[in-house]
Amino acid sequence: LPSKLPNVGTTIFTVMSKLAQEHKAINLGQGFPDFNASPDIIQLVTKAMQDGYNQYAPMPGTIELREQIAIKTERMYGYAPNPDTEITVTSGATEALYAAISAIVSPGDEVIVLEPCYDSYVPAIELNGGIPVYVSLSSDDFSINFSQLQSAITSRTRAIIINTPHNPTGTTLTQKDLQFLAILLRDRNIYLISDEVYEHIIFDGQQHQSVLRHAELRERSFVISSFGKTYHVTGWKLGYCIAPRELSTEFRKVHQYLTFSSFTPLQIALAEYLRNPEPYESLPQFYQQKRDFFVNLMQQTRFSLLPSRGSYFVLASYGHITDESDTDYAIRLTKEIGVATIPLSVFYSNKTDNKLLRFCFAKKEETLERAVERLMKI
Amino acid sequence: LPSKLPNVGTTIFTVMSKLAQEHKAINLGQGFPDFNASPDIIQLVTKAMQDGYNQYAPMPGTIELREQIAIKTERMYGYAPNPDTEITVTSGATEALYAAISAIVSPGDEVIVLEPCYDSYVPAIELNGGIPVYVSLSSDDFSINFSQLQSAITSRTRAIIINTPHNPTGTTLTQKDLQFLAILLRDRNIYLISDEVYEHIIFDGQQHQSVLRHAELRERSFVISSFGKTYHVTGWKLGYCIAPRELSTEFRKVHQYLTFSSFTPLQIALAEYLRNPEPYESLPQFYQQKRDFFVNLMQQTRFSLLPSRGSYFVLASYGHITDESDTDYAIRLTKEIGVATIPLSVFYSNKTDNKLLRFCFAKKEETLERAVERLMKI
Ligand SMILES: CSCCC(=O)C(=O)O
Ligand SMILES: CSCCC(=O)C(=O)O
Repeated sequence: LPSKLPNVGTTIFTVMSKLAQEHKAINLGQGFPDFNASPDIIQLVTKAMQDGYNQYAPMPGTIELREQIAIKTERMYGYAPNPDTEITVTSGATEALYAAISAIVSPGDEVIVLEPCYDSYVPAIELNGGIPVYVSLSSDDFSINFSQLQSAITSRTRAIIINTPHNPTGTTLTQKDLQFLAILLRDRNIYLISDEVYEHIIFDGQQHQSVLRHAELRERSFVISSFGKTYHVTGWKLGYCIAPRELSTEFRKVHQYLTFSSFTPLQIALAEYLRNPEPYESLPQFYQQKRDFFVNLMQQTRFSLLPSRGSYFVLASYGHITDESDTDYAIRLTKEIGVATIPLSVFYSNKTDNKLLRFCFAKKEETLERAVERLMKI
Repeated sequence: LPSKLPNVGTTIFTVMSKLAQEHKAINLGQGFPDFNASPDIIQLVTKAMQDGYNQYAPMPGTIELREQIAIKTERMYGYAPNPDTEITVTSGATEALYAAISAIVSPGDEVIVLEPCYDSYVPAIELNGGIPVYVSLSSDDFSINFSQLQSAITSRTRAIIINTPHNPTGTTLTQKDLQFLAILLRDRNIYLISDEVYEHIIFDGQQHQSVLRHAELRERSFVISSFGKTYHVTGWKLGYCIAPRELSTEFRKVHQYLTFSSFTPLQIALAEYLRNPEPYESLPQFYQQKRDFFVNLMQQTRFSLLPSRGSYFVLASYGHITDESDTDYAIRLTKEIGVATIPLSVFYSNKTDNKLLRFCFAKKEETLERAVERLMKI
């Protein structure tokens, strides 16, 4: 059987989580919280199951949930998508990313990805016969180099994928970035896929620069979000895509045959839970405190942390400690020191090794403390 | 935006369910139970959430669930797949079908589908650049015409999709069918995708002819199953695929980027719930009773029912009542009589109209009674 994805092995997240388990390492690799969801949302899911909401949800999601998503979106970004035609609920943001790519990419189409980037973009492009075109974020601050981005555009460019707050670097796009992007795309037939799954995890008083704020950009965009990150339930696998009617129509055609619909009781529960903005409005503060706590502790180690302005990730530089490749070092830290991380090179097509490790700080304070205690041994 | 699926509209299931709702019709169209799941399984899901199993499950599913699937499979079919390498848990059987097709179909590959067939097969083939090749099941009893099937095979045939018990016709494959299929495929490099989501809904003392019983066939097969059908929770969207190691490797590469993983609390719960074989072992009797109840009631109407030997569907012939197309008739029955069904023609690429409607009898007896009362008016 010739592989459709010859270059793909098991994702690094699985590899490192497994290694962490085997070596009883503290897992600051794969991005997930080690604290539980609110009992309220669990109670709402239970109630929905008991009330009998256990059969197929409508293919685009329950209308009640889509309405609440529209209300939340307007509250956050001053723009209310149409729940009937512009919002689709998916089985996690991963499915939403895949469906958006699949809806628009045909064999030979080029899709520009900004490296380092999340590891599902490129395989999704390739499975649809598309050609990933790589543009590196600047190596000092991971900002977009617009002149390089412009040079990468060809007549076959079908889409650009952006991500803010950014996994794995913890950077965020600015209003100016989106303005440049809008100018760049003006009069071009190029779609934008905007991965905004960390939209509510943003620090230092910044405003999340959702593409949905920008009328010109959102007309050509699939904006993708996630409930897993917002409500501390990455294993619940519910996300959504907001896109203009015409794009949503094509998106839904794909979604319809990828998964058809998503876990119904959760949709019922979230339509209720979303009415209270407090949980997502307090998230920046919640995670900023974790970031500050972790960054402070890490000053006792030999690592140098790069600024994290959003997401629950922070990069740590270690080139002054050892020459080892980031992958070797991450494996050794897991086995010998007992702390698992993700080497940044895995997020680059050519495995660029900048001697950086990604730490996830979505953890209890005691977990972060225990991890740093171990890291102090270095 | 040129559509990747220009011929696809909203699925008939959505269309008819919506029409049913608008006209307060009894919905015997889309296949789902109108009774609730066991409180035990709901309780187990609740417990898993409360216990904090709310983060990403391993990409192929929790090992405990895969182990229980292996035990169940051995119990049912005398063959124990390897949980580590041959079983993958998916976000519903729809995802499993898509991932299997995507794992093996490249642009230009032909995939043989036996019509009438479930509506996700062909779009999944087309989204992967494959070419669906249609072979009709015999028009009298919907059995496989092996000489026609053989004629449809070319050097570009990549896979054949089979489905037993069969949606939409309620027929089942026999041991002989699988033997013929094995002979036909011997020495040919053709994969088999076997949709067995109704494996536990089979009547009249038949044994479900799973491809997993047949050593020769299963070496080339993706066998797909569903918990939604078995535990009366079609909206919980959990399924799985059993395939030999090499095929599972490619299957997982796709699954990894389609959804990555599925709702964790349910996996924890099912690993426990599956220990008791009673719920799935009693399913044939449970649904046979419903079938008999419905078939008996329907004798009071002018419809002629075809035999249903498995699944929760039965076909009804109405050509002696009216000349209307099955689609027109299904719409009229929904609006005027208040009973929604699915017209069989939607399961054919060329919309063959055999004047047959599909009824779903996965309903409470009172629902079936109320529906038949209405149908008696015809
Ligand atoms: C789907 S597992 C990866 C989780 C994640 O988003 C990350 O660690 O980057
Ligand atoms: C995914 S909705 C369709 C349900 C079903 O399997 C059917 O009605 O045939």
